[in-house]
Amino acid sequence: MFNQYRIPRENLLNRAADVTEDGQYVSSFSDPSKILGAALENLSAVQHSSTVVDVSNNISCTNWPRPVKYHDLTKDKRQVEQWRLFGYVAAAVVFRIYIQSFAQVYLNIVEKSHMGENVDNLSEAVSEIHAMVSCSKPLLTWTTMEAAQQCREACGGHGYLKCANLGDIRSNHEPTVTYEGDNNVLQQQAGNWLLRQYSAARAGELLDCPLNTVTFLRHHNTVASLVFTANNTAQLKTTQFIMSTYKWLICYLLKQTYDKYEALLAKGLTKFQAKNKSQVYRWRNLTKAYSEYLALMFSLEAIEKKEETLKPVLYKLFTLYGLWSLDRHLVELYQGGYCVGEEPAKLLREAVMELCSDLKSEIVSVVDALAPTDFVLNSVLAKSDGRLYQNLQKALVGHPGTFERAHWWRQVVPSAKL
Amino acid sequence: MFNQYRIPRENLLNRAADVTEDGQYVSSFSDPSKILGAALENLSAVQHSSTVVDVSNNISCTNWPRPVKYHDLTKDKRQVEQWRLFGYVAAAVVFRIYIQSFAQVYLNIVEKSHMGENVDNLSEAVSEIHAMVSCSKPLLTWTTMEAAQQCREACGGHGYLKCANLGDIRSNHEPTVTYEGDNNVLQQQAGNWLLRQYSAARAGELLDCPLNTVTFLRHHNTVASLVFTANNTAQLKTTQFIMSTYKWLICYLLKQTYDKYEALLAKGLTKFQAKNKSQVYRWRNLTKAYSEYLALMFSLEAIEKKEETLKPVLYKLFTLYGLWSLDRHLVELYQGGYCVGEEPAKLLREAVMELCSDLKSEIVSVVDALAPTDFVLNSVLAKSDGRLYQNLQKALVGHPGTFERAHWWRQVVPSAKL
Repeated sequence: MFNQYRIPRENLLNRAADVTEDGQYVSSFSDPSKILGAALENLSAVQHSSTVVDVSNNISCTNWPRPVKYHDLTKDKRQVEQWRLFGYVAAAVVFRIYIQSFAQVYLNIVEKSHMGENVDNLSEAVSEIHAMVSCSKPLLTWTTMEAAQQCREACGGHGYLKCANLGDIRSNHEPTVTYEGDNNVLQQQAGNWLLRQYSAARAGELLDCPLNTVTFLRHHNTVASLVFTANNTAQLKTTQFIMSTYKWLICYLLKQTYDKYEALLAKGLTKFQAKNKSQVYRWRNLTKAYSEYLALMFSLEAIEKKEETLKPVLYKLFTLYGLWSLDRHLVELYQGGYCVGEEPAKLLREAVMELCSDLKSEIVSVVDALAPTDFVLNSVLAKSDGRLYQNLQKALVGHPGTFERAHWWRQVVPSAKL
Repeated sequence: MFNQYRIPRENLLNRAADVTEDGQYVSSFSDPSKILGAALENLSAVQHSSTVVDVSNNISCTNWPRPVKYHDLTKDKRQVEQWRLFGYVAAAVVFRIYIQSFAQVYLNIVEKSHMGENVDNLSEAVSEIHAMVSCSKPLLTWTTMEAAQQCREACGGHGYLKCANLGDIRSNHEPTVTYEGDNNVLQQQAGNWLLRQYSAARAGELLDCPLNTVTFLRHHNTVASLVFTANNTAQLKTTQFIMSTYKWLICYLLKQTYDKYEALLAKGLTKFQAKNKSQVYRWRNLTKAYSEYLALMFSLEAIEKKEETLKPVLYKLFTLYGLWSLDRHLVELYQGGYCVGEEPAKLLREAVMELCSDLKSEIVSVVDALAPTDFVLNSVLAKSDGRLYQNLQKALVGHPGTFERAHWWRQVVPSAKL
């Protein structure tokens, strides 16, 4: 549509670089350190993605009051609903703490850089942050999509109601998986960075991770030799089990990805072709595991600093999110020999169910803490007064025209009859 | 809202049963065989669910032309898109053949019964059909939901366009997972029937499955002793591997469910409580596997009778659907010892990727065969002329008001400026 459509050169956005009248690309910076500063502007991509992540998390938090209040989830007979919903509530809490911590780290670096202060390993930090955001945005936006769907289903027929506001939330959130970086493309970028770190670790070189998100790769051989040794659910419901299992998982998936990628290069494929062919299963699972690990790592540090009275419920939510997420990686845990036989999957799933049951008396308070006000929530199903059916009735009888005939009624009722 | 609202007794729908003036329940049939006929009316539930299944499948078929034509999926570099889409296309084909075959079986029984002819094991057949529909409706409606989402994502930003008609398809389809029987409730009903058959098989009693969907349970011990022995992908891409793996899977999941359920009963729980507590993971996976097996079993029989020229592509689609679905049961295949070590999951996933690649030259024809006409499809992204960008441009410039100012433009532009 812009074929042969002329845009004058003076319309260029040329603060950091320009094109001369004879078509040469030039940078307007002579000082290399300034170019680095300008490169930091790429972080605007990070900012956009971060905003999406934040919005996505807020939407996620907005979902929960409906189904959680809709069902009386404190009852045992609601086990299926507990299982389908509580993991997502835990995810919303862990993600919120993660985003707050991570935003602080990121904004500190941006502030220092803008003030002209020296930031150690700035370009390495920028790369690491880029990798972190590139896999966190897919994790948060896809999880929120799934959560919105589970919320609607858990509210049954009432979930369709316009005044439940679940459909609109879902539709409005949906584009986040595509814009500000399509999720699949972003995952590749995180995968590239991870593979660079792993290759360096294998070669005994230094890792470029000033934020320490993959420092454990230094000991990748030791980590890879870990195995599942628990024989009761109490041993699984620990931060230590969750974090070390994730480290094993990331090492295993990196090794799989690395081996496949190298094998394809050895076959004569280009790097681009090799990445494409090794992406499905390997890169997706790898960057998903890494992003979950990031959320767990940052939120764990933050929870440890919270006031004592908050810690018990936050640890429960942390543990539930960790085990509920590991459940989805069971194939790799078995495939790589970390798990063997019937017990590991059984124990892991029992631990998830136990945590759901442990949380049932606290979940309504958790959801109330996450939720915005009734006005923002804008849903007849989750008003803070808890009067579900009365509010439904009020919405119904209060809606203009509820008791009127449709204007086209004469078209469907032969006039002779009435 | 109907509190103290009186409805006269004469408004009762009382063809098969009634309530007398003094409140007694009476059946209006004296002949027991007639009561059975009336009970067949319960099949109206089956009919409703079947209709949902059929509509769901049609919607599923309607989705595909967009993303498949949107991408040039015949190219190797599109491996992620092939992987995310082709499995669902294969599912749509297998489901369509399954529904056609199954509807024929069902309608034959209904016809005979309505004509007053004798149907062997009528009440057993009714129970089996009820179980089949109760798990097939969740399978088809949930799969179509996932497919609609994948289609939208695969079309990127263009997928949001109103004129792409993907959002409306998704929203209109969404209620199917709840109405005519909530999917979770229906799965329990199928689970009940399956568990009854398994208990009978364990006790050496006769199975009540005139449609032969679980006849293999007679040999549940032999089936349970099967293990994964393939050492190349060719051995996996066979109908024999798929069907026997599903039989193992169903036996394993039944044994897990049975053991858990019995253990809970032994602890003193009621049947209702025990079912609730054994549902998550076990009943869901069990009825999902059974429904996939049904789709495969019925479609395989039908494909074997198709004309020779159609068979190669139909077998490829059948095999892709079978392996792609088994991929999602890998945890249980490992947990139960059917698979051990790194190779099985690796081979299975390689086989899926190979089948995607094998199908790339045929997939557009397959999608065209599934799809309704352009008018019904009603999407700018998938017109049969294949002129994607020209059609997008036409839709954009042809839309009333595209080149007009918004009526509220004065509110955002200070009048002094223009």
